[in-house]
Amino acid sequence: MPTTRPAADLQAIVAEIHAELAPSFGAGKVADYIPQLAHVDPRGFGLAVVTLNGALHAAGEVEVPFSIQSISKVFLLTLALGRLGESLWTHVGREPSGTAFNSIVQLEAEHGRPRNPFINAGAIVVTDLVLAGHSPREAIGEILRFMRFLADDETIAIDAEVARSEVATGARNYALAHFMRSFDRLAHPVDQVLGVYFHHCAIAMSCHQLARAGLFLAAGGRSPLTGNSVVSAARARRINAVMLTCGHYDASGDFAYRVGLPGKSGVGGGILAVAPGHAAIAAWSPGLDANGNSLLGARALEMLARRTGWSVFGA
Amino acid sequence: MPTTRPAADLQAIVAEIHAELAPSFGAGKVADYIPQLAHVDPRGFGLAVVTLNGALHAAGEVEVPFSIQSISKVFLLTLALGRLGESLWTHVGREPSGTAFNSIVQLEAEHGRPRNPFINAGAIVVTDLVLAGHSPREAIGEILRFMRFLADDETIAIDAEVARSEVATGARNYALAHFMRSFDRLAHPVDQVLGVYFHHCAIAMSCHQLARAGLFLAAGGRSPLTGNSVVSAARARRINAVMLTCGHYDASGDFAYRVGLPGKSGVGGGILAVAPGHAAIAAWSPGLDANGNSLLGARALEMLARRTGWSVFGA
Amino acid sequence: MPTTRPAADLQAIVAEIHAELAPSFGAGKVADYIPQLAHVDPRGFGLAVVTLNGALHAAGEVEVPFSIQSISKVFLLTLALGRLGESLWTHVGREPSGTAFNSIVQLEAEHGRPRNPFINAGAIVVTDLVLAGHSPREAIGEILRFMRFLADDETIAIDAEVARSEVATGARNYALAHFMRSFDRLAHPVDQVLGVYFHHCAIAMSCHQLARAGLFLAAGGRSPLTGNSVVSAARARRINAVMLTCGHYDASGDFAYRVGLPGKSGVGGGILAVAPGHAAIAAWSPGLDANGNSLLGARALEMLARRTGWSVFGA
Amino acid sequence: MPTTRPAADLQAIVAEIHAELAPSFGAGKVADYIPQLAHVDPRGFGLAVVTLNGALHAAGEVEVPFSIQSISKVFLLTLALGRLGESLWTHVGREPSGTAFNSIVQLEAEHGRPRNPFINAGAIVVTDLVLAGHSPREAIGEILRFMRFLADDETIAIDAEVARSEVATGARNYALAHFMRSFDRLAHPVDQVLGVYFHHCAIAMSCHQLARAGLFLAAGGRSPLTGNSVVSAARARRINAVMLTCGHYDASGDFAYRVGLPGKSGVGGGILAVAPGHAAIAAWSPGLDANGNSLLGARALEMLARRTGWSVFGA
Repeated sequence: MPTTRPAADLQAIVAEIHAELAPSFGAGKVADYIPQLAHVDPRGFGLAVVTLNGALHAAGEVEVPFSIQSISKVFLLTLALGRLGESLWTHVGREPSGTAFNSIVQLEAEHGRPRNPFINAGAIVVTDLVLAGHSPREAIGEILRFMRFLADDETIAIDAEVARSEVATGARNYALAHFMRSFDRLAHPVDQVLGVYFHHCAIAMSCHQLARAGLFLAAGGRSPLTGNSVVSAARARRINAVMLTCGHYDASGDFAYRVGLPGKSGVGGGILAVAPGHAAIAAWSPGLDANGNSLLGARALEMLARRTGWSVFGA
Repeated sequence: MPTTRPAADLQAIVAEIHAELAPSFGAGKVADYIPQLAHVDPRGFGLAVVTLNGALHAAGEVEVPFSIQSISKVFLLTLALGRLGESLWTHVGREPSGTAFNSIVQLEAEHGRPRNPFINAGAIVVTDLVLAGHSPREAIGEILRFMRFLADDETIAIDAEVARSEVATGARNYALAHFMRSFDRLAHPVDQVLGVYFHHCAIAMSCHQLARAGLFLAAGGRSPLTGNSVVSAARARRINAVMLTCGHYDASGDFAYRVGLPGKSGVGGGILAVAPGHAAIAAWSPGLDANGNSLLGARALEMLARRTGWSVFGA
Repeated sequence: MPTTRPAADLQAIVAEIHAELAPSFGAGKVADYIPQLAHVDPRGFGLAVVTLNGALHAAGEVEVPFSIQSISKVFLLTLALGRLGESLWTHVGREPSGTAFNSIVQLEAEHGRPRNPFINAGAIVVTDLVLAGHSPREAIGEILRFMRFLADDETIAIDAEVARSEVATGARNYALAHFMRSFDRLAHPVDQVLGVYFHHCAIAMSCHQLARAGLFLAAGGRSPLTGNSVVSAARARRINAVMLTCGHYDASGDFAYRVGLPGKSGVGGGILAVAPGHAAIAAWSPGLDANGNSLLGARALEMLARRTGWSVFGA
Repeated sequence: MPTTRPAADLQAIVAEIHAELAPSFGAGKVADYIPQLAHVDPRGFGLAVVTLNGALHAAGEVEVPFSIQSISKVFLLTLALGRLGESLWTHVGREPSGTAFNSIVQLEAEHGRPRNPFINAGAIVVTDLVLAGHSPREAIGEILRFMRFLADDETIAIDAEVARSEVATGARNYALAHFMRSFDRLAHPVDQVLGVYFHHCAIAMSCHQLARAGLFLAAGGRSPLTGNSVVSAARARRINAVMLTCGHYDASGDFAYRVGLPGKSGVGGGILAVAPGHAAIAAWSPGLDANGNSLLGARALEMLARRTGWSVFGA
């Protein structure tokens, strides 16, 4: 089903949102646990909509790369499902967590099995599964190639300095990984798993690239940009479902309520959202809200969903 | 947007699902905490689809009333939103809970404010809000009138014996209510609030009635059956969002993954599901799974969503 | 073993402590959840030491009755052990709780079995056991007679107004009781159990009376005042052990560290402490610390234990 | 105050306990998380009582060294208190934990500050404090010298193979340490702190050596064996208090109830107990109960306390 909006309308909507939000640029709190994230311009903003026909409707700095951080978890999940199929879910759940994204309480109560692949513990388990049979370097290479393949863009790269900084500041992630290892939930040494994990979180992409990379989720699993089939239509729906229920940590319910689209946020200020049958959307603004999600990014998506009628919950 | 399926196709799909599930009738465990629920025929099954044009596509015992139990929480939320508007959310959250439906741990950690209106604690708070300015008897009457108005059916009634039994066995709900009262979260005495709560849980409805009552959620807030506007289109979307993220207790993620429709289950074995722009659906089968949701009801909805392409997450 | 201190010394120590603390009288925060407790003079203070030979060494207002509140839990435990013997411990644990005194989290994690008889939930279970075979009125009467018997003082009475106020404000206790009932941990209706519970918490006693009532615990189970055997020596030791590990809610470790005596506090500002082989001690000062224990009462006991060398942990 | 028992009696009591327990030798479950612990003879048993005059009363294999494991936490606490004094308690609490010895839930709820120095997290913090200003090798050397000084025995050594195995299997401890580091609770790198931690847990001592090393705690802080003052009398009392309330993980209340002596257990099957004014006692039997404490060791101490009247809670 092609997008139901004339392209001209859509471009106008995107431009309006940019204009209406401009007075608020800089709102929220930029992540500062590593210097590389703290040094970003807090007033940066981008909104890119790529419709099923491949057209880009954009406003703001949609070609500026930023650290995708947790948004990479969507693509890791896609890779791991390709490897293991539905048996992936013996390793990680698919329920919203009801606790903060890096909580260890839930892990203890549930014997080291993470609730879903979009909290840190779950993404660490998924990374461990993607690592199987590879060296860390190979796994990182494969993930990067997958991102380039999805976006059809060979320039996508990892910010090595960000990855190094994550290693230095990642005490909580080390705790989660060792903790899961104490329940025999990881097949590889903690250092290897986290090495890969920190690298895929450190991938730098622009809004434009990110929207292109996520387009297969809006298009029944096949990228309209390249014609490549990435996953089956059923799997695309299911990944969207996990994004909707778990994509914004402990504010997933609020995002569903306000925006009504599957989405995944990252502390770099990006959000990837999917409007099934219509478009993939990437919003970026570094200032975060109290839950660690992009403040203006979410607001932009809320405005977009309302004005396009793309909410999955009804026109 | 009218349903995209020819009516003949849809009736055939419903009939097929009934036939395919028939060998499994009786699977799952019937709720037995009160005798009135335990005495139901475990082999009962009904599937009713009411499309936006008001047509019914049904199979099985779709005219047999059953105890809607927690499904009533959707309608209470609708009533309370009508009264308080968005300020309702100062009293109750809208995030998935991550713990069992009657857990008290989350309440303690969050100072007596329930996570969402579809766990017991949240629905008790919503009942307290609906009770404002009324006697318990009046509030029960108003809720019943609302259900009859929605379904356009004056025969809908409360099973008084079920309501009485709930009072006798509801120790956990009394604990939740007193606990919230200790945080000043309830304006009315516990006995009054629970009196109303147990009565709306004891409403008996058939699949046909339930699908009719929920149709406004699939139709932008206006019931196509009567032409009555129930809520705004935006509010209908939002109620659907809460159903999708929170409607199946600690298996909400799984229901979204498998079925891909907003839904709300009850321990009486019913599930109300909403296919925005297409139909409202009620499934009923008394046997429950380990999470307290109808085993075959969920399976029927999974089959229906796949065969109709109605998943909100893509065709 | 008689007290190792000459009586003159002991009286001097008690007088010194009173004098040294006098500038601080009124420190701490008086419990105000019911008016009857809030109206007490915050500058009240009493310290009564009754040695094994029955002699009283006292300073301050040791004949002024105050609400013993949770100190009654020690005597209820004694009564219940007399009834059930060691099988009591199938109903309640004897481990420190690690959470606040009225926490419900631990109860949920441990299926409704309270950790020890000195947190509210545990004392409610013990009250339920003491109630067995009696009407609430009879049970209250028996508890009161037991207190009079122990202190050899027929004037001890219940403050009925306090008991009534507890009923009105006891939402948290109602929640705990209903919650345990949902796990089938209570044999009697919640209202009956809490009726008895609130009444024994509302017993009013002076420091002098309290020290006399607790003397059997310092004297191998037999009261030197009357010659009556209350419990065996082994049981007296064991009750002392539970007081030491669990007697001050989540500050039990701190009390053991600073004072080194088995003790039980109440929100009325009283503390009963036991120096095995030496004396029973009651301290009273209404101002509470952040953990709900008497601020100056604990300080007085710390000074007393240091100056007498009565710490159970060494001279 | 010298022991109140004639030496002949005491030797008879110890011999009787050995004889009465002999039919049960081998009961319980030997720790098997590292091969070095699993290979111990499960039927081993020793009971050594060293009275204040230095006399040994012993039965069984009291000269056989075993891995003291968590018993080392008592001596680390003593060292750290010597360094920091009471300011130690800003780094770690002194309340019983109410959860299993290696639980991470409590840590998260309390912002990474361990409840007491005898759970793993607390001992890791104490180790970090002892490490201050030293290389790991120096710190290990200092701890070993302290043990030799206390027991007046230069043959005490670390089992290097045990230490190495702990490193390989210590995922839970790595998780705890990284987790605390994420709250800035550790001053040194995790690998250094745990290196020292695993080495002091791997100290091998016999019952005889252990009882001698702990004698200062029964004797007001000064070792009667050497005349050396180790800590003040007040500090000895306080360490005893922490042992009594926290020394047996989540069975500390039970040990106080049954035995009535300050004690500290280790998964190697040893227990060090202190009878203030009388003796230090070491019991050893490798089979553990469900809480990870020596099954027969605790039973032997219960018999000893009853027959000697040494319970701190009364004769």
